[in-house]
Amino acid sequence: MRLATMLCLFLLTAVPPLHATVIDHLEPANWWIGMKRNRVELMVHGEGIAAATPKLQRAGVAIVDVQKTENPNYLFVTVEVAADAKPGAFDIEFVEGGKVVAKHPWRLDARAPGSAQRRGFDKRDAIYLITPDRFANADPRNDSAAGMKEAANRSDPNGRHGGDIAGIRKHLDYIAGLGFTQMWITPVLENNQPGFSYHGYAITDLYGTDPRFGSNDDYRALSKEARARGVGLIMDVVLNHIGSEHWWMKDLPSADWINNGGKFTPDNHRRTTIQDPHAAPGDRKGFLEGWFAEAMPDLNQRNPHLATYLIQNSLWWIEYAGLSGIREDTFGYSDTDFLSVWAKAVMDEYAGFAMVGEEWSANPAIVAHWQHGKANPDGHVPYMTSMMDFPVHIALRDALVRPEGWDGGWTPLYEALANDFLYPDPDDLVVFAENHDTTRALAQVNGDVGLWKLAMAYVATVRGIPQFYYGSEVLIEGPHERKDGELRADMPGGWVGDQANAFTGAGLSAAQRDAQDYVRKLFQWRKRTPVLHTGKLQHFAPVDGVYVYFRYDGKKTVMVALNRNPQASTLAMDRFSDFAKPGDRANDVLAGKAVTLGTSLALPAKSATILELD
Amino acid sequence: MRLATMLCLFLLTAVPPLHATVIDHLEPANWWIGMKRNRVELMVHGEGIAAATPKLQRAGVAIVDVQKTENPNYLFVTVEVAADAKPGAFDIEFVEGGKVVAKHPWRLDARAPGSAQRRGFDKRDAIYLITPDRFANADPRNDSAAGMKEAANRSDPNGRHGGDIAGIRKHLDYIAGLGFTQMWITPVLENNQPGFSYHGYAITDLYGTDPRFGSNDDYRALSKEARARGVGLIMDVVLNHIGSEHWWMKDLPSADWINNGGKFTPDNHRRTTIQDPHAAPGDRKGFLEGWFAEAMPDLNQRNPHLATYLIQNSLWWIEYAGLSGIREDTFGYSDTDFLSVWAKAVMDEYAGFAMVGEEWSANPAIVAHWQHGKANPDGHVPYMTSMMDFPVHIALRDALVRPEGWDGGWTPLYEALANDFLYPDPDDLVVFAENHDTTRALAQVNGDVGLWKLAMAYVATVRGIPQFYYGSEVLIEGPHERKDGELRADMPGGWVGDQANAFTGAGLSAAQRDAQDYVRKLFQWRKRTPVLHTGKLQHFAPVDGVYVYFRYDGKKTVMVALNRNPQASTLAMDRFSDFAKPGDRANDVLAGKAVTLGTSLALPAKSATILELD
Repeated sequence: MRLATMLCLFLLTAVPPLHATVIDHLEPANWWIGMKRNRVELMVHGEGIAAATPKLQRAGVAIVDVQKTENPNYLFVTVEVAADAKPGAFDIEFVEGGKVVAKHPWRLDARAPGSAQRRGFDKRDAIYLITPDRFANADPRNDSAAGMKEAANRSDPNGRHGGDIAGIRKHLDYIAGLGFTQMWITPVLENNQPGFSYHGYAITDLYGTDPRFGSNDDYRALSKEARARGVGLIMDVVLNHIGSEHWWMKDLPSADWINNGGKFTPDNHRRTTIQDPHAAPGDRKGFLEGWFAEAMPDLNQRNPHLATYLIQNSLWWIEYAGLSGIREDTFGYSDTDFLSVWAKAVMDEYAGFAMVGEEWSANPAIVAHWQHGKANPDGHVPYMTSMMDFPVHIALRDALVRPEGWDGGWTPLYEALANDFLYPDPDDLVVFAENHDTTRALAQVNGDVGLWKLAMAYVATVRGIPQFYYGSEVLIEGPHERKDGELRADMPGGWVGDQANAFTGAGLSAAQRDAQDYVRKLFQWRKRTPVLHTGKLQHFAPVDGVYVYFRYDGKKTVMVALNRNPQASTLAMDRFSDFAKPGDRANDVLAGKAVTLGTSLALPAKSATILELD
Repeated sequence: MRLATMLCLFLLTAVPPLHATVIDHLEPANWWIGMKRNRVELMVHGEGIAAATPKLQRAGVAIVDVQKTENPNYLFVTVEVAADAKPGAFDIEFVEGGKVVAKHPWRLDARAPGSAQRRGFDKRDAIYLITPDRFANADPRNDSAAGMKEAANRSDPNGRHGGDIAGIRKHLDYIAGLGFTQMWITPVLENNQPGFSYHGYAITDLYGTDPRFGSNDDYRALSKEARARGVGLIMDVVLNHIGSEHWWMKDLPSADWINNGGKFTPDNHRRTTIQDPHAAPGDRKGFLEGWFAEAMPDLNQRNPHLATYLIQNSLWWIEYAGLSGIREDTFGYSDTDFLSVWAKAVMDEYAGFAMVGEEWSANPAIVAHWQHGKANPDGHVPYMTSMMDFPVHIALRDALVRPEGWDGGWTPLYEALANDFLYPDPDDLVVFAENHDTTRALAQVNGDVGLWKLAMAYVATVRGIPQFYYGSEVLIEGPHERKDGELRADMPGGWVGDQANAFTGAGLSAAQRDAQDYVRKLFQWRKRTPVLHTGKLQHFAPVDGVYVYFRYDGKKTVMVALNRNPQASTLAMDRFSDFAKPGDRANDVLAGKAVTLGTSLALPAKSATILELD
């Protein structure tokens, strides 16, 4: 009996089961006919699946490669899709010893018309940034969801507050009405983490929307409905890391899938090491392979299967959801070569697409390294159309609060813009006064609405693509020191029972209504004013707290005069005679009235004066 | 009678005088045979000289062009010198109406052997910077000089103190003994100004040494005697401006000779306008054409005669004095195209020469614009071999005094060096802790000799060409706010009767002797250590107030560990295992003893530890 039992155990252990292999994951679940990338590598995960051989029977579809790793639970199956393949679902079978041990459905879809030719966001656009958990809760039923570790708790600044995709869909007219033409929504993919899951950057399923935000279908519907209102959707993509509860972490595809051998080592954040010719290799490794946080295992994109997975994932979402752009998180932290390959793959597929990277540095030479067209001494060939303009962001915030003086006042901002020679295309940079990771612009200026308006006017009129953060229009100030959960405050009116409502205007203070009008006026005007999109910029060295620049295109000229002084200023106009002369007629955009220029211009305290010259 | 008088006056006014035209200036007074630039444009100045025709009779020499301006007192005579011309003096005659109305001697010289092939300063060198009025007064007879407006007054910090070329000649062994191989002496050309003439930057005769410093012959002798001790001479050249008492100012060669129509308009110092694609033309003009000071009229190098004059003047001094380099003052303030033409002309003549420009900016992208080999988006083609490394200078001073922290401590210096990717050749930059225009390094660190030594050790061991300022070795501290006349303090021992003597050591305090020994040890060691000249540099992100870097060339390795903490630190060595391992033998350069490395290294408080690894 004992021997028989042992023999039995031996057989069970040594011979793989011939039946009932379960496919836990097969990603992506579909592809499209007519993509330039017509070979897609499917990641197949299931216990012992590597012992099986994948098969499929479908006209125009063929398995052209099968790769394994040291983990017998993974197969990487490359499928080639012919241009004349037909849409529809079919099974992929997994065969072992002549028998089908598993099968899994797969699907080919037709592409939406014009998909390859889509236009990405560009300098004609203005972007509204949303933290979806904090914008509007239109479907309280999904505030918590079965199987999701964290339930809603609106009283916790770092908890989930219940905002959802439905909430954004509900308020698309509001966003479009403010004059915005793009939305960047921070990640909505599943973050099944025990805490801080609201922010979205610890993704646990790269193909699935978090059920507390909605479904993939909801996300796609949001995109479609926004587009119908002239608003594109920019997805927030995270290539550098995943959430620690991602299913990969329980059964890694390979030992090198996660940096630092899968163990937490804090990132050193030494971003200069990327271009520094003197950097110690260990420091560069500490930047590229360190983890952002223990809850965010750092992906090793040097693994070719992972690189392919991430590239396909980006293409999948662009095609699936009809995206108009990607915002890529923690840009330089990913493998440098991979960043080039990834971005090229996306731009090869969608030549008119746009992608903006987050490189949080005050040094424009570090940011410029990543923009397409930059000739880099280190040989790196970048493909990002755009980068977040952190140098201008930092300088703008400094400029509003630094005392006047040779290095003070507007000078840092004037000198930051002067560095545009470092960029292949500064007009394609995204400019912003604040985002979800900074203290709010209003907090930066200690609640001074006049200075805040200067920041908004600057962002709306300077070269580049402006990005605005939700709630700023109703003067959400937030903490003066960085506390992420608090600065990402709930939008008033997004929740049933809110006292004030930004969307309807009900309950807003006079100052809030005034601020909202200011933003609406600025961005609606920007939307219909091509010289702000494609015109050149000429600026004049700041003098006595006043900074003046012009946008011009040979047809139209706009003058922007920013007075940061706490008192009115009189601006002598003789410096600007190339653009404006006494007697010229102009439209004062913010005052909404016609004016005739004199030899000087009266500038109210802490305010922007914007003149459209005839 | 009355009518006759009037007739007489008419005749005197209308008919140019046929005799006794006086040639006030003819520059340059000679040229050399065998120069690539074998055409030299002579500036001839004398009342009514433009009415005359220049003639000369000399084998191998011909007048090939004569140009006039609207001022009848100037002629520009281009002389071509054949390769087979013979050295010697001859006259140039000026003929009017068939008669010789003036003549002036001119001379051709033979070049010194190897002149064209001279080696300029480079990374093998270390530069000792001297303010000649403040270094040593070896000839009290020339402290004041006939015809010179300002007499010596040693009690006035902004007056002339009597230092001279003879004083430098007297102490060449001292300078060489400290380990320096180049001298940069601030300008010695005539500054016949009513005040502040000691600093030398308001030149009133571009071909003449100020008699209060000595003669041209003295300057040439200094160069020769220094070279015999292995010390090259770097001339301080000012292309941007002259002194308001320059003889041109009394009779300008042309109306456009001086910027802003010859009237003082303060410079706006907006150096960003040079590369800024958005700069207002008026602001760029205000930088290029504004005057540095009312006493310094700003030269318009767009005038071709002036451009030629300045180029010839630089070549003349290189050839005449046997220079090993040029330091060019207020670099970007001169006409941008001219800077390229001027520097190319010099480097075409002397392919192995070296020139360093002063561009006082913390922004390496602004400094890099001027270094030879930089591909500039604005199309500017630079020819300077070197630039003063102001970004590293500023960061070094910050690094020594800023509190520890993410952005503090050594971080600015580490990140400044990381920007080396912006330069075509960072190894050729001149690095310095202080110069004649900054507060002294010791003042910057509030008199803390430990921190001052860190600065000296850094400058001596980092990539680039170190530049040291006289008197720092005996701890001249100077004012803590910029007061030029005071920071350029008299070198102890340079004047008869000085209580202490830096040159002999007499009367120096123990701290001064220790500092002098430290400097001598550092730079003598640097001189004989090729890995510091041509080796690569690898640095490690600073941790806890300690910054470590290595110089290495495959043959030798030097470790530099800089501890800015006010207490001793223990440095774990495991990060540096590519360079040093426990058990390795090393020479502690500053302690002068052999050591065996362990797993950690003890670093004394506020000190540099420099190890030569076997």
